[in-house]
Amino acid sequence: MPKHSSKRIVTFTSDFGLSDAYAALMKAAVLRYCEDALLIDITHQVPPQDVLCGSISLERAVDGFPAGTVHLAVVDPGVGTNRRMLVCELRDQIIICPDNGLITWSWRRHPGGYAHEIFWWPATVPSNTFHGRDVFAPVAGMLAAGAKISALARPIAEPLLLEVAPISESERIGQIIHLDHYGNATTNISYDAVQSRNLKSIRIRRRQLGSLRKTYCDVPPGEPLALIGSSGLLEIAVRDGSAAKALRLKVGDEVIVQ
Amino acid sequence: MPKHSSKRIVTFTSDFGLSDAYAALMKAAVLRYCEDALLIDITHQVPPQDVLCGSISLERAVDGFPAGTVHLAVVDPGVGTNRRMLVCELRDQIIICPDNGLITWSWRRHPGGYAHEIFWWPATVPSNTFHGRDVFAPVAGMLAAGAKISALARPIAEPLLLEVAPISESERIGQIIHLDHYGNATTNISYDAVQSRNLKSIRIRRRQLGSLRKTYCDVPPGEPLALIGSSGLLEIAVRDGSAAKALRLKVGDEVIVQ
Amino acid sequence: MPKHSSKRIVTFTSDFGLSDAYAALMKAAVLRYCEDALLIDITHQVPPQDVLCGSISLERAVDGFPAGTVHLAVVDPGVGTNRRMLVCELRDQIIICPDNGLITWSWRRHPGGYAHEIFWWPATVPSNTFHGRDVFAPVAGMLAAGAKISALARPIAEPLLLEVAPISESERIGQIIHLDHYGNATTNISYDAVQSRNLKSIRIRRRQLGSLRKTYCDVPPGEPLALIGSSGLLEIAVRDGSAAKALRLKVGDEVIVQ
Repeated sequence: MPKHSSKRIVTFTSDFGLSDAYAALMKAAVLRYCEDALLIDITHQVPPQDVLCGSISLERAVDGFPAGTVHLAVVDPGVGTNRRMLVCELRDQIIICPDNGLITWSWRRHPGGYAHEIFWWPATVPSNTFHGRDVFAPVAGMLAAGAKISALARPIAEPLLLEVAPISESERIGQIIHLDHYGNATTNISYDAVQSRNLKSIRIRRRQLGSLRKTYCDVPPGEPLALIGSSGLLEIAVRDGSAAKALRLKVGDEVIVQ
Repeated sequence: MPKHSSKRIVTFTSDFGLSDAYAALMKAAVLRYCEDALLIDITHQVPPQDVLCGSISLERAVDGFPAGTVHLAVVDPGVGTNRRMLVCELRDQIIICPDNGLITWSWRRHPGGYAHEIFWWPATVPSNTFHGRDVFAPVAGMLAAGAKISALARPIAEPLLLEVAPISESERIGQIIHLDHYGNATTNISYDAVQSRNLKSIRIRRRQLGSLRKTYCDVPPGEPLALIGSSGLLEIAVRDGSAAKALRLKVGDEVIVQ
Repeated sequence: MPKHSSKRIVTFTSDFGLSDAYAALMKAAVLRYCEDALLIDITHQVPPQDVLCGSISLERAVDGFPAGTVHLAVVDPGVGTNRRMLVCELRDQIIICPDNGLITWSWRRHPGGYAHEIFWWPATVPSNTFHGRDVFAPVAGMLAAGAKISALARPIAEPLLLEVAPISESERIGQIIHLDHYGNATTNISYDAVQSRNLKSIRIRRRQLGSLRKTYCDVPPGEPLALIGSSGLLEIAVRDGSAAKALRLKVGDEVIVQ
């Protein structure tokens, strides 16, 4: 691992919601092992059991946080079964999560990672329904406090990856991979793919959106547009509105660049 | 009070929601008295005025956080009236809350507590609608900074407790005490109560759930089940779904172990 | 700037919601420039693009936090256009936000501020859709770390201010300026305006609310009332209920003190 600041950042991504104590209990478990960790919530509002959606938020965190960050991600419908539990190294950061595909987008967009299977197990019998608190968080806390990965997990060949349309650097047909809080739709078509073509128009669900815009204000209020979003991918939006609602978009919808 | 780490954890439980500045204003007031407090949200999404629901989240926090933690809990429909304001000691932790039953579950599940009534009052006239900011948070900040409880509050015999079905260590009939974010239903039937019987089946609202399962994946997707949840209590769930919705459960519903 | 505690508080107000990584990415950018900043969320649930609502939450933060605090506020539908980006000084605090009216309530309620236009620009090309991460947060981080405002922004005469009914110190007719999480309605009528009159009754949408009450419990459950809220302004509420729903209130509704 690289050198890092005096205080380790530990981030949290889950489907725990914000109405129960679950997220806080995970933090308490991290603090038990690393009392000066700097705790940052990515989101706890991944839709329940939606591993693919959680995978997107986790990748955004891996993209935005500095070397040395420890990311704890728990969307874990298989909790208590024999699904593996992972420690991955990517971009000089550490990710702890169940081996159910949650790592997919991080693994795909940041190649060169190393995966390990957790063999650490708590001395007292853990709950069968909350490994976030009883296994993942202690491991995150120990790693944040400076433990070696090899003391807690063994190398494996590759994590389980969900089938997703890869980020396209050159294709002209892509799909929606995420709908955000504003109703903006992120696609898997990269800036480079758009740039490399003599791009005339973007089409979604038989609707022509015209050429690529630079800002939301390049169209009148209520009108749809396509632009490059903050993750470097083609995004469909409606100015001052929700593209998801106005255009009835869903994850997987086809987007065509002409 | 016990020894504690160099930095005091202060947790927050309220019905303030997350769309206003209320929770942050309470934190600012804590920081005014204890600038190096480590602030952790338990939840601010207790349903408005739902003291009993808040009591469950607060107990989870008391259960999960270490000795020395200061818990600030504010679900306070009686704010500004002459209801008492409490400082309680439980498990070498401190809880600050209105005396309206919010302490109920913590007090019941962790016997041996001490209760005190706050007599501290701010020098400038406080708001009649936001004692969380003007009274409770300063008291929490002072205690987190090392003030003695006796400087701020006087001992009382017992806090006000809501009538709740106690956690059953042996009964075969219990009830639902909480519905969580996933729609999982926590009951007041303990693991011990389940274990001590030759348990054949769990029944809820005339529906047989079969025997106790170990993980959510022990039934097919969409099917209901009963298992021991992360709080050590019998829990009713639906795999990859919401038991609250699918079985139309509500707090108080009877659960029978046969 | 005044002296401040060893650790700078940086607050966050936005319409980013809590289901994406956006708020966390802004925090990562602040930490890159000021690794020991103390990060406090005000709210990320400003309704999308609702600059006026965000302005209220931001003012509450400015009112409640101590000298030296850095406030980062991003409700920014004009992101990527040539709208100005501000650093304002108010009450020995610093506010960083787009120049679209988000500063309005802070500027009006805390006179004597100084406004500056940000000229700092990142070395790598920023996104056109997320200046919160790429411009505002770095500026906030640098200022929290002790940079001089003059190194990042130049003085301007005045920020853009939205037309709002000013806080009335003497008027008997006012309006609703905010509806909170509980459905309580804050008006622009101050405590002083209410006190300075031989106040008989408060009226809202043809409904008489009677005289000013002291606490929510001064009326029976379900009944509406008027009292002075925690911001020092006249507030309309329903005991144990939502005034917004029960009385069908909206921002801008007229309130009359008789």
